[in-house]
Amino acid sequence: MKPVNLTEKFRLFTEQWSPRVIAELNDYQVKLAKLEGDFVWHRHDDTDELFFVVEGELTIEFRDRTAVLGAGELIVVPRGVEHRPRAESECRVMIIEPRGVRNTGDAGGERTAANDLWV
Amino acid sequence: MKPVNLTEKFRLFTEQWSPRVIAELNDYQVKLAKLEGDFVWHRHDDTDELFFVVEGELTIEFRDRTAVLGAGELIVVPRGVEHRPRAESECRVMIIEPRGVRNTGDAGGERTAANDLWV
Repeated sequence: MKPVNLTEKFRLFTEQWSPRVIAELNDYQVKLAKLEGDFVWHRHDDTDELFFVVEGELTIEFRDRTAVLGAGELIVVPRGVEHRPRAESECRVMIIEPRGVRNTGDAGGERTAANDLWV
Repeated sequence: MKPVNLTEKFRLFTEQWSPRVIAELNDYQVKLAKLEGDFVWHRHDDTDELFFVVEGELTIEFRDRTAVLGAGELIVVPRGVEHRPRAESECRVMIIEPRGVRNTGDAGGERTAANDLWV
């Protein structure tokens, strides 16, 4: 029941594409991530995924369109939908999804980040 | 799969203490609300509740302490914990919780808002 300040939390890590948990809401986690460059194409078959841009610009490619989000914008990627996040320069996002979701979804591989890293 | 701009959505309603849904994430809803003045003491026995302050200052009283949140700060009120939100001047918040939660929780009464009002 303590307020969590996003700016302060972002100061506590530098690693990109490595989400850090800042809060839990029932069985969901609120995570912060710093993103830059291209991620891998992937999908999450069991859950939707929410991205809220705190700072910078986030592009999410879908197979049939591209979404570009600025600060103060959010998007929900529906379950099963292939997507690829990318950012020209570092962007800071808040991600909300159930506990235990793998960042690389069905793709797996070397970009898979550890879960449950709190900051 | 369309970006949702919080500032634009806030422009579309003026009513205070009347949350508007802007997105759904599995069985959770993302809502925006404009809050000013004192709300009623209440609790949600079945769910945690997340408040993220977009603009202004939000105070949440608990029975044994008080939390004050500014823009860019969030708090999770655990299930079963009595709380009373209030704001000296209008503040704008994003609320995330499961679909179907009553804003006045166990208290009910005249401050109960309609659910599933999208904006």
